[in-house]
Amino acid sequence: MPVVVQKYGGSSVANVERIRQVADRVARTRASGRGVVVVVSAMGETTDELLALARQVSANPSRRELDMLLTAGERIAMALLALALNDRGVAAVSFTGSQSGIITNDAHTNARIVEVRPFRVEDELRRGKAVIVAGYQGVSYKREVTTLGRGGSDTTAVALAAALDAEACEIYSDVAGVFSADPRVVPGARRLAEISYEEMQELAEAGARVLNAQAVEFAKERGIAIYARATSGGDEETIVRRFAPRAPGRVVGVASERGLVHLTFGPGDAGLAPLLELLDERGIVAKQLRYDAPAGTSLVLSLENLHDYAALRGELAARFPAMALREGLGGVSAIGAGINVRFETVRECLRLLAGQGFSVQGLATSRFRVSLLLEDAAVEEATRLLHRELVEREPAR
Amino acid sequence: MPVVVQKYGGSSVANVERIRQVADRVARTRASGRGVVVVVSAMGETTDELLALARQVSANPSRRELDMLLTAGERIAMALLALALNDRGVAAVSFTGSQSGIITNDAHTNARIVEVRPFRVEDELRRGKAVIVAGYQGVSYKREVTTLGRGGSDTTAVALAAALDAEACEIYSDVAGVFSADPRVVPGARRLAEISYEEMQELAEAGARVLNAQAVEFAKERGIAIYARATSGGDEETIVRRFAPRAPGRVVGVASERGLVHLTFGPGDAGLAPLLELLDERGIVAKQLRYDAPAGTSLVLSLENLHDYAALRGELAARFPAMALREGLGGVSAIGAGINVRFETVRECLRLLAGQGFSVQGLATSRFRVSLLLEDAAVEEATRLLHRELVEREPAR
Repeated sequence: MPVVVQKYGGSSVANVERIRQVADRVARTRASGRGVVVVVSAMGETTDELLALARQVSANPSRRELDMLLTAGERIAMALLALALNDRGVAAVSFTGSQSGIITNDAHTNARIVEVRPFRVEDELRRGKAVIVAGYQGVSYKREVTTLGRGGSDTTAVALAAALDAEACEIYSDVAGVFSADPRVVPGARRLAEISYEEMQELAEAGARVLNAQAVEFAKERGIAIYARATSGGDEETIVRRFAPRAPGRVVGVASERGLVHLTFGPGDAGLAPLLELLDERGIVAKQLRYDAPAGTSLVLSLENLHDYAALRGELAARFPAMALREGLGGVSAIGAGINVRFETVRECLRLLAGQGFSVQGLATSRFRVSLLLEDAAVEEATRLLHRELVEREPAR
Repeated sequence: MPVVVQKYGGSSVANVERIRQVADRVARTRASGRGVVVVVSAMGETTDELLALARQVSANPSRRELDMLLTAGERIAMALLALALNDRGVAAVSFTGSQSGIITNDAHTNARIVEVRPFRVEDELRRGKAVIVAGYQGVSYKREVTTLGRGGSDTTAVALAAALDAEACEIYSDVAGVFSADPRVVPGARRLAEISYEEMQELAEAGARVLNAQAVEFAKERGIAIYARATSGGDEETIVRRFAPRAPGRVVGVASERGLVHLTFGPGDAGLAPLLELLDERGIVAKQLRYDAPAGTSLVLSLENLHDYAALRGELAARFPAMALREGLGGVSAIGAGINVRFETVRECLRLLAGQGFSVQGLATSRFRVSLLLEDAAVEEATRLLHRELVEREPAR
């Protein structure tokens, strides 16, 4: 029996009415004769509300207990969806990440999936049931409950699709696919009919929230096509898959992120090894790490999955007296296959930003990306500027 | 008719005897009923000898004339191979890069293929001829002859395989596949039975010469499997293709490169835009570009495809008085999917190198790579050290 994995984000299950709509869609898919595995996020803003509660009861919440707390969100959503399906006469069963066999490393609040053993999911599919799985969560080899970081439900869905050899992985959210920029920030943003894994990965790593970067990496490794669609229906979608870029050197999208911190540790490499050890101990993934004998070590951190930043900053300041911190930064990135063969795109970004008086605080390039560090408050306007000049001026692809 | 593209490197066509052996192999492939396109490099050290001649007649040879000169090397090899095939009764015809429809950008001595229009190759294949194509060369939109940089014949082969929808792309050299390190430097280096596109790309960009990085990128985009084999025969090979890494987080290989220069331009961003403009004008691709408001701009250049370094250095020093240069550097890199999820591999590299008294001058990471900047003279010993500790200690994969 062909299997489809469908993932519904927080806004798609935000209230009872929406959960009923999702149940209707799942029931239709099931009626088409295909097996259905549904991965759900927590309802609406549940995760943020739980985090806020944790901060009220503890100045420095332990990451293990945070994970225990946050995983309650998907547990509620998945049980409600299973109930709604049963109510429609569709046999359904819900499983936690652990029950679904989502095995992760032990980096609490930002774990990575290392293996999927979906035996119970397979058994229930064979029995004809719709299987509802809690996204964003797993269990470590140490048998502790973990969470996958922001957007982790996407990774759950793709990893399950790979493990189950599913015929499709469909990601439903409140936007109809992947856009060339966040439509809430950039009015001229366009839906992309398709995008390559690499470009999507760079967009996600540069801050686009529509799909999680690790999810795309999983899909790329296993060759699974991802269909990003709106829960509200309609034919519009973006297909993420391998394809030869048709216009190498063109910027396909502009992504941005806020809440970045830049750290420098003075000249020399004295602090380098102990710094990395400390970050590993805390399971902290840096966005950029650089060391250069004359300039010393520098690091960019995102506050996004860093729930104990205040404690970390205090410990770093105590152990590395030469440390200098720049907070309140953000990043804006231009993404496209082949844009870094020459420096043209880098130069154009610098020229455009300087022309409008933006102060560029840092620059980094990777294969398909140019990333610029700016003041956090400047990020949205800079995103609109780069999108207008680099994407909107070009004919649609 | 199924088509095979075979590429033979410089050592495989180093003398008349070896050209005869290649002709025998091509004749056997042709006799199996498949169409054959053969991409050849220049014989042996021809390219280096031509470069040395150019330097004797001109202190600063123009890049356009260098390309005109260097492309003579493949022209000789391809004509000799076509003659040897005709001598065996195999109808064969040779084409230059331009005649084969290899269209490139205009970055002389380090051009990139932008399009392939192999009409003449297809016509001759239909007539049953073996088609011999000059590797490493193309023609720009400005109708100038260009070369593709070191290892560019691989790119010619893969690009042709893609354009011709070939059933295989076979790369023949004097080593039987891709090894976990250069066997001439590291006695314990192992042949890898298969390797993913991404890992191969990182190995190539970090200095492994067995396959060219742009060639692997082309193969990845088009989903073409590359078979790397020894010209001398035998069953051993490495297959480069998409596959799920079986041991994420493990180092699969150690690559090294020599002849690196590290440049810094003082604090502030004053020189950044004019510097990038100058590099683009000269068609120079930097290995690393970084800008950071407090530290300023830094750059790593490889001397490999930089035939007019002395002139460039003079101009940079004149235009950027604050520039500081560190020459005589080299890089050693550990490569493996997932090794940068945590800093463990970075820390292990730093610990191993410090333990043996190596002075690490710089550090950069990308998705699948940790690269360390060292004194050039230390590169080979550091490569052996990292390979012994990170690859040889692990069971073969």
